[in-house]
Amino acid sequence: MAHIELGIDETILPGIMGLLAYRPQTGGPLQQLANALLVEPNSLSRGDRELIAAYVSGLNRCEFCRDSHSAFAAEQLEGGSGLVADVHADPASAPISTLMKALLPIAAAVQQGGREVTPSLVSRAKAAGATDVEIHDTVLIAAAFCMFNRYVDGLGTRPGQDSSQYAAMAKLIATTGYDVSPGTRGDG
Amino acid sequence: MAHIELGIDETILPGIMGLLAYRPQTGGPLQQLANALLVEPNSLSRGDRELIAAYVSGLNRCEFCRDSHSAFAAEQLEGGSGLVADVHADPASAPISTLMKALLPIAAAVQQGGREVTPSLVSRAKAAGATDVEIHDTVLIAAAFCMFNRYVDGLGTRPGQDSSQYAAMAKLIATTGYDVSPGTRGDG
Repeated sequence: MAHIELGIDETILPGIMGLLAYRPQTGGPLQQLANALLVEPNSLSRGDRELIAAYVSGLNRCEFCRDSHSAFAAEQLEGGSGLVADVHADPASAPISTLMKALLPIAAAVQQGGREVTPSLVSRAKAAGATDVEIHDTVLIAAAFCMFNRYVDGLGTRPGQDSSQYAAMAKLIATTGYDVSPGTRGDG
Repeated sequence: MAHIELGIDETILPGIMGLLAYRPQTGGPLQQLANALLVEPNSLSRGDRELIAAYVSGLNRCEFCRDSHSAFAAEQLEGGSGLVADVHADPASAPISTLMKALLPIAAAVQQGGREVTPSLVSRAKAAGATDVEIHDTVLIAAAFCMFNRYVDGLGTRPGQDSSQYAAMAKLIATTGYDVSPGTRGDG
């Protein structure tokens, strides 16, 4: 049970979902940020961006974010949940692109602290073909999940009930994205 | 110099300022989040909320965020920069309210990791009079600065030139807040 009274059923709205509903003043910008980073058009695929989010959440040992974003990545990557598990186990040997093999170490450095991102990590990513925007977005996705993970666990929310709940969320997120604030979506 | 080409003069737009300008797609939601947490009406004063932001940024050793939000807190707190320095040195002995003395340890726990926020830290805050929303906002301010700090340092941006630059920013932020995206302000 959460550290504060959220006024929602945490079995239906686990993790960050109850927090977004509890405080829409902050929930709106948080959903818009997630959408800008993980959904809006980008040279990095949605699956690869979810993989960065899932990987950082695993490093932060945030069960809700790790398992939900792993499901979202699996839903949108050809390799599915097997590939996601390989990345959690060891990104260096996982069957991912050279570009992702250079971006994930930047994400891992950000998880440790901003100043752990060295010029040599950045040079290696550029040599692997990373654009400045891709490096920017990798850093900000990793940094944002250092926020989301702390938000979810710092308020003691409960994780999802089982993998089927995450799989159902994954179908929804793949279709609608994260930003469902009133006035931002044309389809009501 | 930043790890990527921001296309701005970092002496004029240090720290996060150049990043917000570089990538407005993410800059908008980030500014709105800062505004919701640090500016919009709240039972915690703007000065106290800036103090939480400055304190966490100090723990993360992010020079730009620590020095800028320390200036913003000093601008809006009766004790000014002396009080802010006392809090950085030792919150337990600083001349701040009992409530803030119970909220800052929650912020420090979040900085270490979400699961460091224990039921006893939360109980202590409630005993000091903290509302659920105040506990929520303390956790999210601390978590958000774990993001902002990593974003600013992870991209290798430069800090401000000197204290007068932060003081000038403090006057501006105290007046206008953080959200200056088009369409969100009535005064153009």
